[in-house]
Amino acid sequence: MDFSIPEETQKLVAKVRAFVATHLIPLEPRLAEGFRALTPALNDARSEAKRQGLWAPQIAREQGGMGLDLLSHAMVSEELGRSPLGHYSMNCQAPDPGNMEILHLFGTPEQQAQWLRPLVLGEIRSCFAMTERERPGSNPTWLSTRAVRDGDSWVIDGDKWFCSSADGARFAIVMAVTDPEAPPHLRASQIIVPLETPGFELVRNISVMGDAGSGWMSHAEVALRGCRVPLENLLGGQGAGFAIAQERLGPGRIHHCMRWIGICERSFDLMCARAATREIAPGRALGTRQTVQTWIADSRASIDAARLMVLNAAWQMEKRGARAARIEISTIKYFVANVMQEVLDRALQTHGALGMTDDTVLASFYRHERAARIYDGADEVHKTVVAKRVLRAYGLEIK
Amino acid sequence: MDFSIPEETQKLVAKVRAFVATHLIPLEPRLAEGFRALTPALNDARSEAKRQGLWAPQIAREQGGMGLDLLSHAMVSEELGRSPLGHYSMNCQAPDPGNMEILHLFGTPEQQAQWLRPLVLGEIRSCFAMTERERPGSNPTWLSTRAVRDGDSWVIDGDKWFCSSADGARFAIVMAVTDPEAPPHLRASQIIVPLETPGFELVRNISVMGDAGSGWMSHAEVALRGCRVPLENLLGGQGAGFAIAQERLGPGRIHHCMRWIGICERSFDLMCARAATREIAPGRALGTRQTVQTWIADSRASIDAARLMVLNAAWQMEKRGARAARIEISTIKYFVANVMQEVLDRALQTHGALGMTDDTVLASFYRHERAARIYDGADEVHKTVVAKRVLRAYGLEIK
Amino acid sequence: MDFSIPEETQKLVAKVRAFVATHLIPLEPRLAEGFRALTPALNDARSEAKRQGLWAPQIAREQGGMGLDLLSHAMVSEELGRSPLGHYSMNCQAPDPGNMEILHLFGTPEQQAQWLRPLVLGEIRSCFAMTERERPGSNPTWLSTRAVRDGDSWVIDGDKWFCSSADGARFAIVMAVTDPEAPPHLRASQIIVPLETPGFELVRNISVMGDAGSGWMSHAEVALRGCRVPLENLLGGQGAGFAIAQERLGPGRIHHCMRWIGICERSFDLMCARAATREIAPGRALGTRQTVQTWIADSRASIDAARLMVLNAAWQMEKRGARAARIEISTIKYFVANVMQEVLDRALQTHGALGMTDDTVLASFYRHERAARIYDGADEVHKTVVAKRVLRAYGLEIK
Amino acid sequence: MDFSIPEETQKLVAKVRAFVATHLIPLEPRLAEGFRALTPALNDARSEAKRQGLWAPQIAREQGGMGLDLLSHAMVSEELGRSPLGHYSMNCQAPDPGNMEILHLFGTPEQQAQWLRPLVLGEIRSCFAMTERERPGSNPTWLSTRAVRDGDSWVIDGDKWFCSSADGARFAIVMAVTDPEAPPHLRASQIIVPLETPGFELVRNISVMGDAGSGWMSHAEVALRGCRVPLENLLGGQGAGFAIAQERLGPGRIHHCMRWIGICERSFDLMCARAATREIAPGRALGTRQTVQTWIADSRASIDAARLMVLNAAWQMEKRGARAARIEISTIKYFVANVMQEVLDRALQTHGALGMTDDTVLASFYRHERAARIYDGADEVHKTVVAKRVLRAYGLEIK
Repeated sequence: MDFSIPEETQKLVAKVRAFVATHLIPLEPRLAEGFRALTPALNDARSEAKRQGLWAPQIAREQGGMGLDLLSHAMVSEELGRSPLGHYSMNCQAPDPGNMEILHLFGTPEQQAQWLRPLVLGEIRSCFAMTERERPGSNPTWLSTRAVRDGDSWVIDGDKWFCSSADGARFAIVMAVTDPEAPPHLRASQIIVPLETPGFELVRNISVMGDAGSGWMSHAEVALRGCRVPLENLLGGQGAGFAIAQERLGPGRIHHCMRWIGICERSFDLMCARAATREIAPGRALGTRQTVQTWIADSRASIDAARLMVLNAAWQMEKRGARAARIEISTIKYFVANVMQEVLDRALQTHGALGMTDDTVLASFYRHERAARIYDGADEVHKTVVAKRVLRAYGLEIK
Repeated sequence: MDFSIPEETQKLVAKVRAFVATHLIPLEPRLAEGFRALTPALNDARSEAKRQGLWAPQIAREQGGMGLDLLSHAMVSEELGRSPLGHYSMNCQAPDPGNMEILHLFGTPEQQAQWLRPLVLGEIRSCFAMTERERPGSNPTWLSTRAVRDGDSWVIDGDKWFCSSADGARFAIVMAVTDPEAPPHLRASQIIVPLETPGFELVRNISVMGDAGSGWMSHAEVALRGCRVPLENLLGGQGAGFAIAQERLGPGRIHHCMRWIGICERSFDLMCARAATREIAPGRALGTRQTVQTWIADSRASIDAARLMVLNAAWQMEKRGARAARIEISTIKYFVANVMQEVLDRALQTHGALGMTDDTVLASFYRHERAARIYDGADEVHKTVVAKRVLRAYGLEIK
Repeated sequence: MDFSIPEETQKLVAKVRAFVATHLIPLEPRLAEGFRALTPALNDARSEAKRQGLWAPQIAREQGGMGLDLLSHAMVSEELGRSPLGHYSMNCQAPDPGNMEILHLFGTPEQQAQWLRPLVLGEIRSCFAMTERERPGSNPTWLSTRAVRDGDSWVIDGDKWFCSSADGARFAIVMAVTDPEAPPHLRASQIIVPLETPGFELVRNISVMGDAGSGWMSHAEVALRGCRVPLENLLGGQGAGFAIAQERLGPGRIHHCMRWIGICERSFDLMCARAATREIAPGRALGTRQTVQTWIADSRASIDAARLMVLNAAWQMEKRGARAARIEISTIKYFVANVMQEVLDRALQTHGALGMTDDTVLASFYRHERAARIYDGADEVHKTVVAKRVLRAYGLEIK
Repeated sequence: MDFSIPEETQKLVAKVRAFVATHLIPLEPRLAEGFRALTPALNDARSEAKRQGLWAPQIAREQGGMGLDLLSHAMVSEELGRSPLGHYSMNCQAPDPGNMEILHLFGTPEQQAQWLRPLVLGEIRSCFAMTERERPGSNPTWLSTRAVRDGDSWVIDGDKWFCSSADGARFAIVMAVTDPEAPPHLRASQIIVPLETPGFELVRNISVMGDAGSGWMSHAEVALRGCRVPLENLLGGQGAGFAIAQERLGPGRIHHCMRWIGICERSFDLMCARAATREIAPGRALGTRQTVQTWIADSRASIDAARLMVLNAAWQMEKRGARAARIEISTIKYFVANVMQEVLDRALQTHGALGMTDDTVLASFYRHERAARIYDGADEVHKTVVAKRVLRAYGLEIK
């Protein structure tokens, strides 16, 4: 075993950290102005990132990205995670990278020319329409949205929500049932739907934790009513929707988890700085209190554990394949999400009243990242999956 | 011992619950519009409350309130706590009741005529300016704000924050050091400062968890610059500021804790309703999952425990006095705050993505009530206080 | 509501506490010698208890007990719980009081004369044989032991374990299936079996947490092989075994939980005494450390909560009946058991290496009371029961 | 980074696992007979281990050991940890390996010939006498035991306890103050004391969690009264006692933590096997319950995290030195100890009543391994150490 980080990766990580510190963290106090107001400054930051060669880390160099392997990309993702503006600045803000990936893997040359290329260049944005309000996200084979073949078109009807970043996106990849009589995992297909298509309505940006947001920092509710797109907008084969969605989750998990660890480290940093400087009595720092020391020590341990878990999962995935690493890929979901919530909670508490305010980034992390235990499969679902897989080795099959 | 609730109290509680259900909960979906927009509807609700004799429960009947004893008031407070609009609707929204209480106990007849009476009637609102950004709330004897006697005036200079409901209030009660050389607990005084006083500036409504709020649902940062008020605006004696502030906390603790329990019960209710109706597969409710069952069972137990703790503390306070009940009054602070946070977390998780949205009241509770572990003395401070008092009985004095 | 404790009860509690302190706690260092060696001293203590009128608190006065109501008995049980020797000293050590109760409720006059009377007087001991190694305790309707009618006898065959106190008992009450084709809850009956009956074999005292024990402080594995007793040894009706077992649990739950609270208070006492006196540096007590203070404060709060929960459950049971108080009776099981485990863990940790030794009573509590989360229905089972009952009110029936 | 395990190590680990499974686990049911009774069988196992080349993994090949590097040794230690008999069987049962290490590093050639050599060969055993009942283990510079130079002897007086494995040991390494006026860390020295020395009294094997044990599985209380040994029995320099003790802790931490992980894996294994085979209703396995699934999933995640933490700490220690890896070496202490306690608790609960008995190894682990959070520096002490070191980087020095 070798826990060393290659020098090249260390340099890259340092470069990204400097970029985030210099170009993004200073913008954070303006987060409350909304993303429209921030757009010019963010566009400058994106240009600067591109200029520094920091662009689309997950995309091959020949297609305009950095061509990083999974471990390096993971470490970059941690650095970007230190700011809510990180991933967008380097064009790897979800859901775009997931969409790039499946367009890359499953798209026709025409689809890639039309949708993938401008996405990689950052000229357009995209969204992903899978989740439905009336159907549990834990059961992605059970969907209401239907796509029916009509002549040379798909006609789609249904309601979706939590289409992140739909506001301002050029196209959506919509998951819809095309073969209702097929076995559950073969019922749905993925179809590319330009947002300008008649019948595609962005009903609202959902107010999430008090904030409807806008632009890429929003989560839309969407209605599809007789929404008609050409047959060639089908992505991958008919009935392949579920399989493609799974493919989308794999490496995405690694980046998500590393983003969470970036949030942990940023919060840890704020917690320690506060503990070291806040006086609770003249000449006596908050960090002299044993309870705060315990929070720091417990956070240090669990963040380190979380990072090792994710890097190991990435390594296992690259060396042994996603299939063989399924337990690792599931465990990091709930393990890291919970570490993040604990660390955030402690960092906030260490700040007292200030922690409740938007004068630091903690309150934003606290409320928005609560979603980590829910999306991408609720923790409870992943735990069940892991247990079933483990118990199979002991002779118990649970359907 | 007798755990029965008097029939009269049961009737009152049922009446308040019906009022909340009928007149307040339907307004909740409009919370996002901001409190200005809600004001007309809320004013109607307040009129209706008054009409039903539901007004100022903590105030004596002869002064226009309901004259409830502490236990009955506690149970009413739980019912009101089920909605973020509850306490305001019956004119017992913090910080007004605390201010009423100290004006009642320490105010001169003139002060009571000018400030207490219209406050009880709900004609004006008030705020309380104690906390300072640069000084720990855990150490209320260490303040920067100064009030200096100059002729027949107090001249006040300083910076305060988390002056809840200052926006639109008629007056503030300001805690300021008047005797910097006195022993710590005798340095500060409380002074009534009309908000229109020159030199009193409401700098901003602080953005808290993404929301600056307005009106009574806001927390102001305030600057006092040569702010001059008559000497007779001193409340209680000079140097009595800390003692009065303590007095303010006593019964307030009971009501706060019962409000939190109201939040728990509302959340529990939503959690159970969701568990009973949400399908995770056709014909299979979420509530059939053992993890959700465990959340329900653990929440039921801890809410019941919390309520008994608070009612017992209230009873001890009434029968044995606040001094004798100090351990009980401190333990409920952290015990109930943590029960609330756990129950909220489980209720939110049970709702999945919906829990993150403002389509239920849970997300609002989740982010705003995080403050419960911070204000009124951070949990960590109360725990230290309790332990020191306990250890004294074992012969250990900790300064 | 009234949280006061009647003066008479206070006096009784003080008397029991003094008895435990004077006559039992001094015997604890000899616990390791085994119960045979302790018997003479314990017999003296029992005589003294009887002399002081402290005997069989749960039994009516006219039958030789103290005739306490449930709340008073609960408080006595807490005091007795402070020592592992407490309940035995006053003849209310499980399983005897449960057996007394069902003999009292369901026994024939002959059964009462033969078995109940000497039990109440403390002349004999008894045991209860329900649990089977190969069947889950969580499912008391699923038993292997069979009793078959043969002429004027029951002939019993089966294997039982965790027959507490069988070693030295005069008789067992055995739960056996008599009607295998009846509906599950009507299959079993309870039969009185003298231990001297041929075919009743005490296979071993099970080694539990390193200690097989002996006498009443042991848990036996028992084999019944063609074990023949007269038909009149049936307790209650044929098929009533499950119903009687349920009856046995009700008030027993209260006493068990109060015993656990006694253990909590004793442990809390030891923790505080240690914190107040143990020096971690010259002149600096362990109790000055904030972590220890936090343990004390958290323990104080949760023990108080636990006690209020149990007393309320007892009150509800007396006033509204066991059926109406089923949620309360289940919640205290897991709530109190977990409070006890936490408090014990903290008390032990506060003692450092000493906590691991048998030089204090903590290590004995730590290992033996781990069973609290298992017996009388594992916590997980009770939580499911509570949740199902709660969800029924929301329209969800879970079978 | 490279998370692969060298093929050679994998083979070795498999060999050790097979050895433990074949030669040790079958002996476990006899643990209750006491170690005297087990000795012949254990001696056979030790001979077999030696025969297979599995002996003293931490010792250089030329001295009779396996000469493993830290990572390989760590993985072997995990395998041995699966049984309470593991480390003894390969002659690396604490405290012997620690004593071997310091004798190797600091012993004179004569000391090595007399004490180290037979220790490595397994011909004798040793113990370490540092902890004192009246002094906190958290403060190893504060000791009562004195060694005074008298002619060509050291004369030692004092009381020690938790001298593990003193019963039957040939010699003790005793930590005693030789220079009471020196700075705290230079006051003590380590002195080799044969147990046969007059004035060295083994007062008792302390009863720990109900079991005084004997032989190497015991913890002695020791009195030294005018105990006289030659000057040349001093180990390392005078005043070097603390520094040597620190040296002793470094790699020991890795092996201890890996032993704990072995305990975790064994417990996990038992938990899963039980879940897969125990029926809670006819045809329905315990493992179908979501709560048990959650325990399995949480345990899988945290054991994996713990192992990665320890292996990383070992790697950092080898590559960057113990000094640079101090945070890692401290964090694994409390992180792994707590993972172990949680996993054990879940495994025990999964077994129900069986988990309380000594019919599985769990109950023994449960009670004895509770010490993990206490010895080698209580968790609370390590957390403080980590926090202070972290906060130093933020400009706060805490003395």
